[in-house]
Amino acid sequence: MAETFTPQDPGFSERISQTFSNQGIMRTLGIKLGTVDPGRVQLELPIREELCQQNGYLHAGVVTTMLDTAGGLAALTLMPVGAAVLAIEFKANFMAPAKGETLVVHGRVVRAGKTITVCSADAYATTRGKEKHVSTMISTVMTVVDRGTKD
Amino acid sequence: MAETFTPQDPGFSERISQTFSNQGIMRTLGIKLGTVDPGRVQLELPIREELCQQNGYLHAGVVTTMLDTAGGLAALTLMPVGAAVLAIEFKANFMAPAKGETLVVHGRVVRAGKTITVCSADAYATTRGKEKHVSTMISTVMTVVDRGTKD
Amino acid sequence: MAETFTPQDPGFSERISQTFSNQGIMRTLGIKLGTVDPGRVQLELPIREELCQQNGYLHAGVVTTMLDTAGGLAALTLMPVGAAVLAIEFKANFMAPAKGETLVVHGRVVRAGKTITVCSADAYATTRGKEKHVSTMISTVMTVVDRGTKD
Amino acid sequence: MAETFTPQDPGFSERISQTFSNQGIMRTLGIKLGTVDPGRVQLELPIREELCQQNGYLHAGVVTTMLDTAGGLAALTLMPVGAAVLAIEFKANFMAPAKGETLVVHGRVVRAGKTITVCSADAYATTRGKEKHVSTMISTVMTVVDRGTKD
Repeated sequence: MAETFTPQDPGFSERISQTFSNQGIMRTLGIKLGTVDPGRVQLELPIREELCQQNGYLHAGVVTTMLDTAGGLAALTLMPVGAAVLAIEFKANFMAPAKGETLVVHGRVVRAGKTITVCSADAYATTRGKEKHVSTMISTVMTVVDRGTKD
Repeated sequence: MAETFTPQDPGFSERISQTFSNQGIMRTLGIKLGTVDPGRVQLELPIREELCQQNGYLHAGVVTTMLDTAGGLAALTLMPVGAAVLAIEFKANFMAPAKGETLVVHGRVVRAGKTITVCSADAYATTRGKEKHVSTMISTVMTVVDRGTKD
Repeated sequence: MAETFTPQDPGFSERISQTFSNQGIMRTLGIKLGTVDPGRVQLELPIREELCQQNGYLHAGVVTTMLDTAGGLAALTLMPVGAAVLAIEFKANFMAPAKGETLVVHGRVVRAGKTITVCSADAYATTRGKEKHVSTMISTVMTVVDRGTKD
Repeated sequence: MAETFTPQDPGFSERISQTFSNQGIMRTLGIKLGTVDPGRVQLELPIREELCQQNGYLHAGVVTTMLDTAGGLAALTLMPVGAAVLAIEFKANFMAPAKGETLVVHGRVVRAGKTITVCSADAYATTRGKEKHVSTMISTVMTVVDRGTKD
């Protein structure tokens, strides 16, 4: 199940950092880039009240922002230099309230194609070292060489 | 196709406003509550750079936050007094870049059940009065009477 | 909402019939091609016990076969001569049991792109002229010019 | 990641066989029940032309029928005696053509709740002992104690 990927761009790690830091929304929400490996990217977010919904849980949209970004960046690790990643669609299940200290999200590539890459991502809420699996996503992204247009 | 719904709670509109204003994330992102009708809720967001991804488009996660919230609140308009709405899952397609001045999102109930309600939501990016359909979502929400636990 | 599409191939209707009749599964299940218009295709199926699950309802997988096919053929009506359609992904909600005499499915194009087309489809179970909305799908399909490979 | 589940019904295996054999569609398509474990069910199908689409690949709807059933039965292994399983929704990606000799599908429970269970399923096309991962699904099912109505 745990496939090994060989990146086309040896400088993939810097490219991920660059793309990540070019996203204003990451700073606005306080999302931090974690480990970056071929086909795998991890993100983290300290849970704060101003990101929550009415019950004090992290809003599903914020969880989704992380799931989508982690999957998309995981896809980007395998793309050639100059390529950009664009989300076509995703779907996510919310299995438990996203509450606690930190949300940790693991994104990975399920299958990398020339045009279409399928990713999955899982979110874990952690409190005092204890993890709970709160959400899972499958996403479909597109490799865009001439960036700026969707298709 | 355009079904008419009769709300169980005549004060549904105030309840939506209350639930909306109890969500810190709405203030953080600058999302505004628009019209509220039985089975239908509209949201709006002025597009700002700090909510965008690397190409200057609104991040898909922010679009999703609005799609999810508009659908969930549309479901809540039809729920009995004291009930809360909890997102089980959703799926969204991103058909065009979310760029321009404002993102307008329309959420509506597709089918209201006692436990499970299915919603849909559509996002339109508007620039100088011109609208573009950028995203569509189907979501599944649950009516929770004893709020605080998922199932 | 009801967009008007102009097909690139004036012989789109025959192409749909041809593609439909080349699918062995349509005969196996007894699915019939209904009306074909630019961006819209309708299918019908007499509900039979050998297509049902344990409660006597049409199996969700059979409903899905029709939803997927109706959406994909709707996309194909707008594609150029020689192009084929390939399903990338879909998602469907099941809102009521698919029981009765006939399942009628309406597929339509939500947005047609050069590479990616987004479709939606809805299934209605009919009994003695009365319709019930039982399922809704959003699907993503790809235009394949050199058919036979996915991407 | 590989959670261990304890079934509430020690006779879960017979119940799965019974439910499976009560589904006419399984005989019609030629789907066979494979291994049954707590939270995990496997299905197999010899690929035949009358189940295919126009390119000679197994139709996505047939693949979906198996993914949905494998996930739903996996959920049913963990449900109490007398409970039934009902599909609320699912989403699937199709990553490679489903062609070859046999389609093998593995369904498993991601999270079992009292009302809502989230499942995943993966389909592998096998040819002369070689496997290819062709599809992945996340599904949401409901535990129905008083069977026959959806919610």
